[in-house]
Amino acid sequence: MSRPVKIRPWQRLDTEMVYTCRVFSLRRDRSRSPRTGSDHDFFVLEACDWVNVLPLTRDGRVVMVRQYRHGVGDFTLEIPGGMVDDEDPSPLVAGRREMVEETGWDSDTLIELGAVHPNPAIQGNRLHTFAALDVENVHETHFDTTEETEVELVPLDDVPRLVATGVISHALVISAFYLFDLWRNGARG
Amino acid sequence: MSRPVKIRPWQRLDTEMVYTCRVFSLRRDRSRSPRTGSDHDFFVLEACDWVNVLPLTRDGRVVMVRQYRHGVGDFTLEIPGGMVDDEDPSPLVAGRREMVEETGWDSDTLIELGAVHPNPAIQGNRLHTFAALDVENVHETHFDTTEETEVELVPLDDVPRLVATGVISHALVISAFYLFDLWRNGARG
Repeated sequence: MSRPVKIRPWQRLDTEMVYTCRVFSLRRDRSRSPRTGSDHDFFVLEACDWVNVLPLTRDGRVVMVRQYRHGVGDFTLEIPGGMVDDEDPSPLVAGRREMVEETGWDSDTLIELGAVHPNPAIQGNRLHTFAALDVENVHETHFDTTEETEVELVPLDDVPRLVATGVISHALVISAFYLFDLWRNGARG
Repeated sequence: MSRPVKIRPWQRLDTEMVYTCRVFSLRRDRSRSPRTGSDHDFFVLEACDWVNVLPLTRDGRVVMVRQYRHGVGDFTLEIPGGMVDDEDPSPLVAGRREMVEETGWDSDTLIELGAVHPNPAIQGNRLHTFAALDVENVHETHFDTTEETEVELVPLDDVPRLVATGVISHALVISAFYLFDLWRNGARG
């Protein structure tokens, strides 16, 4: 994180949880502007960290999942992912579990590609991204009560076109492909 | 949007707005699973569309902004952006306004790079992304009551390294750079 030269952080005066759901809670912060001295409310989604995994077959195909998403009320084409629960020993373990549950494909070679903020304006959590190399189809998918996915193997070389045409539209999935390209091109560090 | 072969959409039985904030509202949907027939609650953030703009100088630098973000309680390094208000005639007009307000740089050459879903699991809105070419510094920044930014000119070639090292961590900004690379490499369509 590069630091600002002139601007200063806000001072949080008060905080309260105003609504709690299954996957996040809504928090209201009352904070004071360092510039004007006036107080304002800010709303933040509190959620555990998230993880997504880019599963890649030996012949260069990405194991993607099509699923119904309630935010858009439609189907999306995504890579597998989910929440890093309190009980998970690490984001890697959570990511591998989500990959196996949602796709039925597995690998013991997971590479950490990085972590991003899904939306630092309104969320404090992070999204961890991994690549799973040389994945193999190990068993059927396992769905929890609200999940159902359809697996599609997408040639990695088709991904740019699928993003450009809006078939892949999930920003957090696109961010994962960006991190993967960085890793592949050796631009890290 | 590619369609699923076997899986079907959920049926929404009921919906109610449970909390309203300044920049989004929280909606609860009661929906029925097409697979099990059981009913579940899903929570969705209702927000207007968002826009971000990648302002590029003639000498290959990106005009970025450092600002305090209440979600993470820290400073981020981002490209300018904001909300597409109901009064805005188009995402392009909103994007150009946000760019000028937050950076003081402007251009009349805005290229539409595409639109993504910030998070289709819990949000229905879209994020529109533009590149602004040959931007020039036209005046000082204009801050609304809660905004304050610090402008930093970042060589475009440094962006991969800044993402890899976590200095640029905002997934929606990384998504914009992915779309920009697609446009630059002619992978669209």
